[in-house]
Amino acid sequence: ININSSNMMALAPNNSNKRETVCIFGTGDFGRALGHKMIQCGYPVVYGSRSTQTSNLIPKDAEVLSHAEAAQKSAIIIIAIQRQHYNFLTPLAEILRGKVVVDISNNLKLNQYPESNAEYLAQLLPGARVVKAFNTVSAWALQSGALDASRQVFVCGDDMEAKQMVMNIVRALGLTPLDQGSLLAAQEIENYPLQLFPMWKFPIFLSLGLAAFFFFYCLALDVIYTYIYENNNFSFFIAITIPNRVCPVMALLLLGLVYLPGVLAAIIQLYRGTKYRRFPDWLDKWMLCRKQLGLIALAFASLHAVFTLVSPIRSFVKWRTSKAIISQALNNKTEPLDITNAWLSDSYLALGILGFFFFVLVGITSLPSVSNSVNWREFRFVQSKLGYVTLILCTAHTLIYGGKWFLSPSAYKWYLPNIYMLSLVVPCTVLVVKFVLIFPCVDKPLTQIRQGWERNPKYSE
Amino acid sequence: ININSSNMMALAPNNSNKRETVCIFGTGDFGRALGHKMIQCGYPVVYGSRSTQTSNLIPKDAEVLSHAEAAQKSAIIIIAIQRQHYNFLTPLAEILRGKVVVDISNNLKLNQYPESNAEYLAQLLPGARVVKAFNTVSAWALQSGALDASRQVFVCGDDMEAKQMVMNIVRALGLTPLDQGSLLAAQEIENYPLQLFPMWKFPIFLSLGLAAFFFFYCLALDVIYTYIYENNNFSFFIAITIPNRVCPVMALLLLGLVYLPGVLAAIIQLYRGTKYRRFPDWLDKWMLCRKQLGLIALAFASLHAVFTLVSPIRSFVKWRTSKAIISQALNNKTEPLDITNAWLSDSYLALGILGFFFFVLVGITSLPSVSNSVNWREFRFVQSKLGYVTLILCTAHTLIYGGKWFLSPSAYKWYLPNIYMLSLVVPCTVLVVKFVLIFPCVDKPLTQIRQGWERNPKYSE
Amino acid sequence: ININSSNMMALAPNNSNKRETVCIFGTGDFGRALGHKMIQCGYPVVYGSRSTQTSNLIPKDAEVLSHAEAAQKSAIIIIAIQRQHYNFLTPLAEILRGKVVVDISNNLKLNQYPESNAEYLAQLLPGARVVKAFNTVSAWALQSGALDASRQVFVCGDDMEAKQMVMNIVRALGLTPLDQGSLLAAQEIENYPLQLFPMWKFPIFLSLGLAAFFFFYCLALDVIYTYIYENNNFSFFIAITIPNRVCPVMALLLLGLVYLPGVLAAIIQLYRGTKYRRFPDWLDKWMLCRKQLGLIALAFASLHAVFTLVSPIRSFVKWRTSKAIISQALNNKTEPLDITNAWLSDSYLALGILGFFFFVLVGITSLPSVSNSVNWREFRFVQSKLGYVTLILCTAHTLIYGGKWFLSPSAYKWYLPNIYMLSLVVPCTVLVVKFVLIFPCVDKPLTQIRQGWERNPKYSE
Repeated sequence: ININSSNMMALAPNNSNKRETVCIFGTGDFGRALGHKMIQCGYPVVYGSRSTQTSNLIPKDAEVLSHAEAAQKSAIIIIAIQRQHYNFLTPLAEILRGKVVVDISNNLKLNQYPESNAEYLAQLLPGARVVKAFNTVSAWALQSGALDASRQVFVCGDDMEAKQMVMNIVRALGLTPLDQGSLLAAQEIENYPLQLFPMWKFPIFLSLGLAAFFFFYCLALDVIYTYIYENNNFSFFIAITIPNRVCPVMALLLLGLVYLPGVLAAIIQLYRGTKYRRFPDWLDKWMLCRKQLGLIALAFASLHAVFTLVSPIRSFVKWRTSKAIISQALNNKTEPLDITNAWLSDSYLALGILGFFFFVLVGITSLPSVSNSVNWREFRFVQSKLGYVTLILCTAHTLIYGGKWFLSPSAYKWYLPNIYMLSLVVPCTVLVVKFVLIFPCVDKPLTQIRQGWERNPKYSE
Repeated sequence: ININSSNMMALAPNNSNKRETVCIFGTGDFGRALGHKMIQCGYPVVYGSRSTQTSNLIPKDAEVLSHAEAAQKSAIIIIAIQRQHYNFLTPLAEILRGKVVVDISNNLKLNQYPESNAEYLAQLLPGARVVKAFNTVSAWALQSGALDASRQVFVCGDDMEAKQMVMNIVRALGLTPLDQGSLLAAQEIENYPLQLFPMWKFPIFLSLGLAAFFFFYCLALDVIYTYIYENNNFSFFIAITIPNRVCPVMALLLLGLVYLPGVLAAIIQLYRGTKYRRFPDWLDKWMLCRKQLGLIALAFASLHAVFTLVSPIRSFVKWRTSKAIISQALNNKTEPLDITNAWLSDSYLALGILGFFFFVLVGITSLPSVSNSVNWREFRFVQSKLGYVTLILCTAHTLIYGGKWFLSPSAYKWYLPNIYMLSLVVPCTVLVVKFVLIFPCVDKPLTQIRQGWERNPKYSE
Repeated sequence: ININSSNMMALAPNNSNKRETVCIFGTGDFGRALGHKMIQCGYPVVYGSRSTQTSNLIPKDAEVLSHAEAAQKSAIIIIAIQRQHYNFLTPLAEILRGKVVVDISNNLKLNQYPESNAEYLAQLLPGARVVKAFNTVSAWALQSGALDASRQVFVCGDDMEAKQMVMNIVRALGLTPLDQGSLLAAQEIENYPLQLFPMWKFPIFLSLGLAAFFFFYCLALDVIYTYIYENNNFSFFIAITIPNRVCPVMALLLLGLVYLPGVLAAIIQLYRGTKYRRFPDWLDKWMLCRKQLGLIALAFASLHAVFTLVSPIRSFVKWRTSKAIISQALNNKTEPLDITNAWLSDSYLALGILGFFFFVLVGITSLPSVSNSVNWREFRFVQSKLGYVTLILCTAHTLIYGGKWFLSPSAYKWYLPNIYMLSLVVPCTVLVVKFVLIFPCVDKPLTQIRQGWERNPKYSE
């Protein structure tokens, strides 16, 4: 009685200590790299090829046979061929019956075909146990050992035993298999290596759009207005002065946008009186890109910090400083220290430094390895509590820095407000609403709603 | 003969390619989220509930039955119910006999009950094979896929086979199971999600306490003393000047405290002549929080760097500079360049920059992903060798910066030393003792003691 | 019929729920630490020792027996003894036949013996199933739980079943086993903990050599030349001024060296008309240390940034500034704002800031945890596209900063060019060649060569 045939581990590392033979169809780039690596890791490799003459590019210890012969030698066949040539496999369907057939192909475009390559292969070979794997690994990385970006191998397939065998090979090659479920996941796995920061796209385009708007807004008010009405050529403001106005505004605005959806969600929950109804789609999406928004805000804040620190080195600032000093000297007088001014200047600088410090702390915990090593409560503490401290400090920094201009009429060129006033709208709204939400009379029902599953007998046990 | 029953892998992914049915008791928040995720990953899910009417919140493809019926359908029962309702399980004890019962509950406080929830459950259901798991995963993260902070699932249980089955499910859900041993570990696992940076508590409170002390010390000497005796209102020093005195002092002091226990341990080992007696408890604990102390020191050093770089922008500093220049101009003279001064100023700045640079390098290797990718020797090299270079550079930076004040009587206001003198005590002590320890006549016996296990025939083979 | 004996999983967690007994030969440092940890994790431990009297250092719950008795009690024997005492095992060869013998030893030097310790052990005990493991773990870390740098345990061995058993133990101790293949890998595994940043050695020595050269070059031109011909003592330039010239030069040069091999490789491929011939060895090695070169370049760039930001605080710079202002004041005139100068100053600062910003972004994606969480396409995008943006920005920054000196004769002291001119050679070459390479008439054949495996019928299917 062959009991082991029903045991999923039995096939993979079999009774003897030798690794099982692996067959690779296709002697192209990736087929060779994979075969090379497998031979290194102790697998006997046999290539299936149209021309069975051994090229000097094929790993030395590998055998090269015809497709049919090669397939018969092994329980696992890796198809290192492009999808458009898959149809040549049809005559081999009988030989491949019951074998593990690994699809490693990639496409050139997202959703290039109606069905994934692996599903197409499964249709062509109805008896084969098709597994999708290895498509996220690059041939170059496999050969050079520089597997920085592609150590993870997504695996999917309908046959558990077949999938397990492939995952064992993946592990033996020093890579990390990630089981993605049934062959239905193949489409997503084939799209994965074609993606380019999908979670970042919206936040980055939003930020670039807003930054461009604020840049031209500042350009109009600070350069063009000054040129028209005061006849001063401050065109060089484009390089540093205006970026250093746009960056803090963007940082504060985006930081506000990180905490706004949480506040909106609380209001929606309070209004509905339940947490069990789904949020609107836009809110869900917004909540899922908060991390990206926050990191972009941190980037703008860092640029703002450097732009500010660099200012004493700027030729224009040096000229302005010496002009002020010389005019005092020529007037033979020394201005006394203005304590209020010293207080304002020092306190907005100190608030900005502290805000930036906490911002960086929160940013560091967004690094995957750091966030993986803290528990959920710690992660929430940093992202929520420290995040709000950052928001409060940065808002206070902006308020103190620009408070004097709220009342000054010269701040309203062309009846338009200064951009730092615009930047304060979102963070101040968030802080005010959040302040209301932590009042006991609001916080208590909200907490009850959030623990609703325990209190409401309809939904819990 | 049912051979497979003794094979731990056989139960989990069984002969057919279908995943085994999982039963979830409780249709609350977490029960639903978990069921949803499991159905996504291909597990048939059946809910056990008091009311068997299907709510629209329960995943569509799940069945809802009475507890007894549901339990009979599956080999694994997940108890998504709060501990206080566990006693309703007592009548089901017979049905649950031999089944894998997964406790996923959390408490609201550390060590809330004398025994862990999982052990309590095991007492209630003597025949069941209880496994603790999933309690570190948040329902929200499970549902939204944002598993940043909770990809790790701690699993413990007395039955190896049951534990393995649960770990397979964990892996299939895309999470990382971590085997924590027997059910005795359940208490710790239940406490884990309630912890808030336990390793950081002491270092942070120590730093805050010391920082507060130094802050008020400076406040007294720099603001209050000046106000009383010189009638100058320098109250705005609170914002930047005093923090920028406290931060470097804290950074240097904490950096000294990172390397002090290592030096103390060496002295103790030399004195005892053996490495096989345990260090006193306080020293052990101190050594285990060196990383945290070092990172807090780095935070203070970073703040010091930014506070220093920001100084030319400060209103007070600008005023002081222009006052000095104007008084020279009015006196019609130009001071020549003071080479000694230029040397001192440039060298303490350069030492500070280099010290901070190495400090940041050491800090980067503390990131989990970096420290995981270096070997023990490399880690020791960075943390110990580069760490001492940092300590030497930072101490030299402080000595050159403040050397002139050691002799100046004006530095002793109210007969108290300037705080930067206090900050030098610990690092200088560490460096002097370390210097003595690397003398061959001291280093040789110490090395012998540390390799003691090979030399002393009593303990080694 | 003993079916399970052919099943590799069957031995490890056996039918009962108890962990199997583990035998440790040697009661030294590491033997005790390992035994202690194993007992904590539920393994019964028995020590084999010459003297069977229980020392109080040996974990309480462990048994101490003679070697022969201890070995008979367990299927796994861990040899915690140094290689030079291995020969005492020869008489035990019969008892150890068929057992799993784990070699955990390390050497003091790289390649100390002709064969690895594990292979030597396998020769001494021909019947035993030798597995290499645990040598990368430190005893101290094992005991204290501070496993930061050594959570990974490399495992190798010729017997799959034995290796699997050891890997299960590794996993049970909370460590991560990494299968390295057959016992041939033991040499490399034994060398691993003795390595000290092998990938970093060449880049660091190259950088230090170049930095020293540029330092003395600057010293000659800026300090010695000035002293001889202008009789000015600018010796203090050694501390900040010269480092701040060397750092940007090094950063730009090394950044150029990161992208030079890619450009060379493209030229070689174009010239050869194929991608299937290996690159020369020096180019392969160069390509593999690009990451390290880039990170060192980033370190120099960071130092340059801080040295620059610190300049307004320097005593010399303050003196120079006030001298200039006083001379204007004494001459009773105020210089007007030089718009060209303001533009130049602001634009090279802005370009430098942006270049540094992108440089840091690229550096962050080099962190292991970040590069593991992006796909190959995203990694290439950041490292290649953003890297070139960084190179362009930094080169432009340098060109604008120093453009005026190209024509000024005073820049050629002793007929030698200023070092920043030297620094521009490599990056400008790279950018010019890259610019040529992206022309369609060059890019098209290159792309075809790189996808060669699909077009050339000789190599692909």
